[in-house]
Amino acid sequence: MKTLAQIINAIRPLNTDAMQDMSDKLDGLLKPTGSLGQLETLAIQLSGISHSTDIHFERKQIIVMAADHGVFDEGISVSPQIVTQIQMLNMTKGVTGVCVLAKNAGAEVLLVDTGIKCAPIEGVLNHKVRADGSGNIAKQAAMSRCEAVTLLENSARLAIEQVNNGIQLIGVGELGMGNTTPAAAIVSVLCHVDPQLTVGVGANLPTDKLAHKVAVVRKAIEVNQPDSNDGIDVLAKVGGFDLGGMAGVMIGAASAGVPVVLDGFLSYAAALIAIQIAPNARPYLISSHRSAEYGAGVALNNLGLKPYLDMEMRLGEGSGAAMAFPIIDAACVMANQMGTLAGSNIELPV
Amino acid sequence: MKTLAQIINAIRPLNTDAMQDMSDKLDGLLKPTGSLGQLETLAIQLSGISHSTDIHFERKQIIVMAADHGVFDEGISVSPQIVTQIQMLNMTKGVTGVCVLAKNAGAEVLLVDTGIKCAPIEGVLNHKVRADGSGNIAKQAAMSRCEAVTLLENSARLAIEQVNNGIQLIGVGELGMGNTTPAAAIVSVLCHVDPQLTVGVGANLPTDKLAHKVAVVRKAIEVNQPDSNDGIDVLAKVGGFDLGGMAGVMIGAASAGVPVVLDGFLSYAAALIAIQIAPNARPYLISSHRSAEYGAGVALNNLGLKPYLDMEMRLGEGSGAAMAFPIIDAACVMANQMGTLAGSNIELPV
Repeated sequence: MKTLAQIINAIRPLNTDAMQDMSDKLDGLLKPTGSLGQLETLAIQLSGISHSTDIHFERKQIIVMAADHGVFDEGISVSPQIVTQIQMLNMTKGVTGVCVLAKNAGAEVLLVDTGIKCAPIEGVLNHKVRADGSGNIAKQAAMSRCEAVTLLENSARLAIEQVNNGIQLIGVGELGMGNTTPAAAIVSVLCHVDPQLTVGVGANLPTDKLAHKVAVVRKAIEVNQPDSNDGIDVLAKVGGFDLGGMAGVMIGAASAGVPVVLDGFLSYAAALIAIQIAPNARPYLISSHRSAEYGAGVALNNLGLKPYLDMEMRLGEGSGAAMAFPIIDAACVMANQMGTLAGSNIELPV
Repeated sequence: MKTLAQIINAIRPLNTDAMQDMSDKLDGLLKPTGSLGQLETLAIQLSGISHSTDIHFERKQIIVMAADHGVFDEGISVSPQIVTQIQMLNMTKGVTGVCVLAKNAGAEVLLVDTGIKCAPIEGVLNHKVRADGSGNIAKQAAMSRCEAVTLLENSARLAIEQVNNGIQLIGVGELGMGNTTPAAAIVSVLCHVDPQLTVGVGANLPTDKLAHKVAVVRKAIEVNQPDSNDGIDVLAKVGGFDLGGMAGVMIGAASAGVPVVLDGFLSYAAALIAIQIAPNARPYLISSHRSAEYGAGVALNNLGLKPYLDMEMRLGEGSGAAMAFPIIDAACVMANQMGTLAGSNIELPV
């Protein structure tokens, strides 16, 4: 099995020849040049990833990383912590938001427990880093550096294994009460902004508790002093098992040469970690929707991503990633099925 | 057959009981209250239109209204005028953007010729208002008031007929070289803004010709003096057969009680006409994407619509409407298939 370093080193740059070929192909289709906007940009990106102008992604999967967070004890979430466990049980029954939206998009869902505070759940892959959730980042590191590397490595390997089993497109999702707090800490550190700009209401935190949540994130950063030039350090000190799992999946997907579709704010934080550790993974990332969480804009600007959907969604779980899968199918059918200007003897000015 | 007035009078208000029931139902689903944002708002709207919380739209259709425009002669388009005809032929072959995107979304496409400058085309409904395109609005009215009423009436009847044949959701599309010019005129008149704010590059008009296009739109308004309090007058004087056809479809869909999905800038102009004539049709409108055409923002603000997709698309044809169909399916599966908080004994604060 490959180490994390080997997985990262195996990430190839996008194929610029295939991208140019796709760009030329799109310019010859039955439409004014560039008139399908980001659908065209997406098709070009997918060609670069696929090393081909023949793009298609029949088997799609959303990998949901779930874990509990020690920082929950600081009162930064109004949902009971046991909801992580209950909702993971609901995931196995197919009745959660991401499950019904993934099914609607023709996608599979893979459930992974990277550290829910409960016994292993049937139908959920047991990747528990710890049995009792991560450390309370307001007081200590979320995990050790060694745990962080193992988490990234195992999650990357999982993504690669899925691709080897026939998955052609991966979306990321998460589940973990309180996880917008470590996510805000990560975004603050890696985007070099004050927590005031990255902390939001998450799952309906009353706005009068926002100042407390900001203070907790500030304290987490002060206590842990994460090194913004070291993504593993940031993950270990102010991250979480679900977020690290998502980052690992992103790195693994890129290494296996498949596109990876982001979800909302939690995935933005994970992506910032992933590309700090593996900058070559960046062009494999595809954004889906603009999260309604307050810090979304800061994170997206830093990632250089412009989501396709803007629906004020903030459920997480991978629900937004699932919503973007039909857009990826649309990019493929545009490229593969539209007729050509030449075939109709139409000449349009560029 | 019903007259236009009878069709308009038959438009029912949305069912607020069903909307409240859906809102209550959504609040009980396995998610923090409101966390699916506009997907929830959309489900509530669809319930109001369907008079039920059991929302589903298996048979979807995009109606493409195509026509030529006399104002083409003013040099406001760089695409040859014959492209309207050629591209309609391509529509019958299923190789245009809207055709492949509609197929990808499981939707049918209905092609309607409301005045292309050519003989009737096989596979295309012949609803020609005139055989030689609309009048040049820079010099005269696009059509007579009588023609405008007939166009709206026939297009509305067509939509009602489709619903009677089993169509449950209608999207609108158009095809007509030069049609962003009358659309900009309509938006200018009905939003009370200068053409400088509504004229864009359409299908890649060179930016150094934009000032000329603005001048043509200004002239069209000055010559025709459309009455902004009379949508039929605006359509007749500075509109076009494709735009009037779309407006008629919107009115007909609303009258038949089905949602109607907008496309881009041309559809915004048609929607402004439709709701000026039939204000009760407004809640039946569903936006799809934010058009990249310059005047899109003005029109959307006036319509009070916030599109779900923002992909810098400006192809038209109904391509954006087709892209939004999976979002409507997603709203339905959310409402119909997600589990409940009560079923999991989860209590979340609102």
